[in-house]
Amino acid sequence: MIRHIVLLTWTDDATEEQKAAVEKGLAALPAVIPELRRYELGSDLGLAGAGNADFGIVAEFDSVADFEVYRDHPQHHAVINEHIVPIRKARTAIQFEV
Amino acid sequence: MIRHIVLLTWTDDATEEQKAAVEKGLAALPAVIPELRRYELGSDLGLAGAGNADFGIVAEFDSVADFEVYRDHPQHHAVINEHIVPIRKARTAIQFEV
Repeated sequence: MIRHIVLLTWTDDATEEQKAAVEKGLAALPAVIPELRRYELGSDLGLAGAGNADFGIVAEFDSVADFEVYRDHPQHHAVINEHIVPIRKARTAIQFEV
Repeated sequence: MIRHIVLLTWTDDATEEQKAAVEKGLAALPAVIPELRRYELGSDLGLAGAGNADFGIVAEFDSVADFEVYRDHPQHHAVINEHIVPIRKARTAIQFEV
């Protein structure tokens, strides 16, 4: 199983509406990308002091090929370009085998 | 359920032995911290181009209180201080509700 994680930090002037649009856009992806076996989206609870990211994405795929379908899917790219990029200050990601 | 994620990037001179010591130290924690409901450790597969972290930790807890037991556990701190800090170039984390 492939675990894919993205942690995002928003710009200081990102609005609640912009952040909500990211979550709404991503939440629509499992319906159009069946390769997404599990998909968690969440905003930081701030339990561990400073230095945390603001928003996390945790996805699960059966294979690298399935991850690549998601990675390259046009509706995914639309969410990235229209909603994430305008308020993205920092991004860290990883893919590992579980 | 609380999802806790840490993404780490190692220093350029980190050795394979040092990286293995991190994984070994962390992998011993579920046996001493039963609050850890699920614990995934993995090294980046490099499927998404540049900018990925090197190592990821994904943990699951039933509650914030359980997360805090892990966060503050002395054996966890020993792994951080003895094995992670010496080779840590960057760290990003998040905790969110699932």
